[in-house]
Amino acid sequence: MFQKILIANRGEIAVRIIRACQELNIKTVAVYSTADKDALHMQLADEAVCIGPSKANESYLNIHNILSAAVLTGAEAIHPGFGFLSENSTFAAMCEEVNVAFIGPKKEVIDQMGNKSNARDMMKKANVPVVPGSDRSITLFEDVKKMVDDIGLPVIIKAVAGGGGKGMRMVFEEKELEAKFLQAQSESKAAFNDDRMYVERIITPAKHIEVQILADHYGNVIHLGERDCSLQRNHQKILEEAPSPSLTVKTRQRICQSAVAAAETVGYENAGTIEFLVDTDENFYFMEMNTRIQVEHPITEMITGIDIVKEQIKIASGERLSVSQDDVNLTGHAIECRINAENPLFNFAPSPGNIEFLNIPSGGLGLRVDTAMFAGAVIPPFYDAMVAKVITHGNTRDEAINKMNRALNEMVIEGIQTNLDFHIDLLENESFQDGKYTTDTLTQKIIPSWLKTKEANG
Amino acid sequence: MFQKILIANRGEIAVRIIRACQELNIKTVAVYSTADKDALHMQLADEAVCIGPSKANESYLNIHNILSAAVLTGAEAIHPGFGFLSENSTFAAMCEEVNVAFIGPKKEVIDQMGNKSNARDMMKKANVPVVPGSDRSITLFEDVKKMVDDIGLPVIIKAVAGGGGKGMRMVFEEKELEAKFLQAQSESKAAFNDDRMYVERIITPAKHIEVQILADHYGNVIHLGERDCSLQRNHQKILEEAPSPSLTVKTRQRICQSAVAAAETVGYENAGTIEFLVDTDENFYFMEMNTRIQVEHPITEMITGIDIVKEQIKIASGERLSVSQDDVNLTGHAIECRINAENPLFNFAPSPGNIEFLNIPSGGLGLRVDTAMFAGAVIPPFYDAMVAKVITHGNTRDEAINKMNRALNEMVIEGIQTNLDFHIDLLENESFQDGKYTTDTLTQKIIPSWLKTKEANG
Repeated sequence: MFQKILIANRGEIAVRIIRACQELNIKTVAVYSTADKDALHMQLADEAVCIGPSKANESYLNIHNILSAAVLTGAEAIHPGFGFLSENSTFAAMCEEVNVAFIGPKKEVIDQMGNKSNARDMMKKANVPVVPGSDRSITLFEDVKKMVDDIGLPVIIKAVAGGGGKGMRMVFEEKELEAKFLQAQSESKAAFNDDRMYVERIITPAKHIEVQILADHYGNVIHLGERDCSLQRNHQKILEEAPSPSLTVKTRQRICQSAVAAAETVGYENAGTIEFLVDTDENFYFMEMNTRIQVEHPITEMITGIDIVKEQIKIASGERLSVSQDDVNLTGHAIECRINAENPLFNFAPSPGNIEFLNIPSGGLGLRVDTAMFAGAVIPPFYDAMVAKVITHGNTRDEAINKMNRALNEMVIEGIQTNLDFHIDLLENESFQDGKYTTDTLTQKIIPSWLKTKEANG
Repeated sequence: MFQKILIANRGEIAVRIIRACQELNIKTVAVYSTADKDALHMQLADEAVCIGPSKANESYLNIHNILSAAVLTGAEAIHPGFGFLSENSTFAAMCEEVNVAFIGPKKEVIDQMGNKSNARDMMKKANVPVVPGSDRSITLFEDVKKMVDDIGLPVIIKAVAGGGGKGMRMVFEEKELEAKFLQAQSESKAAFNDDRMYVERIITPAKHIEVQILADHYGNVIHLGERDCSLQRNHQKILEEAPSPSLTVKTRQRICQSAVAAAETVGYENAGTIEFLVDTDENFYFMEMNTRIQVEHPITEMITGIDIVKEQIKIASGERLSVSQDDVNLTGHAIECRINAENPLFNFAPSPGNIEFLNIPSGGLGLRVDTAMFAGAVIPPFYDAMVAKVITHGNTRDEAINKMNRALNEMVIEGIQTNLDFHIDLLENESFQDGKYTTDTLTQKIIPSWLKTKEANG
């Protein structure tokens, strides 16, 4: 087992990882930007190294400074957390070069899963359904036409070189297909000097269902069940549940088996997540694989009793999985609410600032709050707005919801705006309660009606 | 199910019960003394009624005022918590008279188990081993002599009417038997005008092992495994574990079956605990039954996933047990550390005061803190010194210990003295770590050596 681990992250996930290390009797090295000079993660770690100024590009994304910190402190491994460098294969490769273990999959696998076309190929090889669409890039409209005749509408047209929405069009009616394709292609040519395009069926309405995977270095791959992460705003998940409140047992089994097959086929190691879209007929389609720990991993921990971060560390150190698939029992229901420093009434605008008063709910069975906040802490404006995850577990979904309601009503955060009240209202919303929500329910239904209520109440 | 419950208690257990009610959608009524006018339990409840001045005799033990509060607020049931009126059969009877459900066993059972002689009789009927000793009172020395010839030394001689140590003697050698008996008897005569005495074998060294019982109104009785509460100072438990770190599987089964038999024999209803002494050969002896929720119930909740307070409420409302014995799976290991407002370096003298700064540890899997403290809260001098319970759960005992160590090191309580540092040192103590400690280990071994270390360090 490692003696010392550097945590290349900040905020609650850095704190989460440091605590796991402490419980495994592993020394910890925190890295921090100047904006985080009093942050909890640097206070809790055994050692802390400043790696640069506030901007993430110059600190938490500064590979050189982070690796220097690892080498100077004698850290044997780096846990990248999520975001920042967690899915950066260059970083994984450079860790290897300086002989520091990267706690995650092999760099080749990160690359492979980061490339959409490669990922689709691998999934097909594993017999995992992918979203109908082009396996290779298309440049001619007649090929687009053929494809759409085959897979049907609606579709999304995307530039291979795309990013930031450039060279992207959604097509809902056949008559707009040609014009929108040509617009997207010329946009791509102008922006990236690249006219290669993809076409993909839009699966809507759909649920975002993801499966947690654990895999060791000896070919053992298990799943820890699925999470329903369909409540999203701008692709940011806001509330997650495990298990999904609407999936049938049969689909659950099939989707989890597919995820294991996918991980086996790519030779996956460590913790990872396979994301799927599930349509109203419970057909499911591979979306992407996240080759890192996820924000919402705690709900899976709550229903399995398995500490995924500790498993990551053990796997990276060469240990075998501590459990087999047969040992995994999914018990009860868990929910996570992401508490963000933002103002839901002003289009969820970020609200950094100082925490003047804080009451973190606690007590009773099945309640957990993961946060780096403390009374007096600073929420800097430079990073993600998520400041806490409130997680509840109950024997039933109703019990988990009631517990969440109780917990959120006890939570007090003064000094910044948060989405706490929004979450409390969300729990009461019928579209949440019936469990049938899809990826567009939050923005198309729940938020508009919530804003109306707020306006009506002045 | 009840619509509204009055909680006849204060501090963390009142908060614990209020939270359970909230999660069951039951309205709550808190009662409070003037010393508790800003206490958390009265803030969290839907309604709060002042029932008298600071002294417990005039408030939390004031049956008349508490029942008036229940009737006036329309509470359908009263949860007594632990301590105060929780084992007062008069209170249970008066609840019945005013048509308010008492959340606990029938008043007759409280009486029966509160009477040592009756309790022994019932246990014998249930084939539960009792501590060898006199079943009836003794007044003549020759009968004491016969008894000691039979059960052996050491014994304790106690006045039937005894209390506060009066009329009590421990006898380790035969030659002191007569003198000590006569001393104890004449002391009892002088103090209580009563010369009836008991003689009982002293089981030492012994472990304090207790079994959690749940029983509904339909004759269903189950156990939730045992707790090891041997680490005590002046009969106050300080750290508890579930399961016991030293009990063999065979003894565990026998002791749990005995506890179920005992509960069945007395017609027990609701949650209760049977306490046993277990000697070094794993012979076990009934000590007493606690007819209420116990302080240390959370460790049983953590290894079973069963919310005992919610079960209490459901049982009292007439529901059947939600689980059968076969459904009860004991998973992993849990530990509870009782954080007291006291100064271990001054003979554990109580240390009431104001909480100036507070950091309650949180985050990660299997950590729970039950407390009524908050930043700015007042710890009054009138009640119990226990201010928080830190509870951890791990797959193994080592994991639970490491997690506790991590949690206690994150905990900050400023403004009062506490035993937090003592607990941190206790976790490192070999006599704790090997799990073989008995009821005298804390005071005879751990505390003296701890004090020496403290003195050596100035």
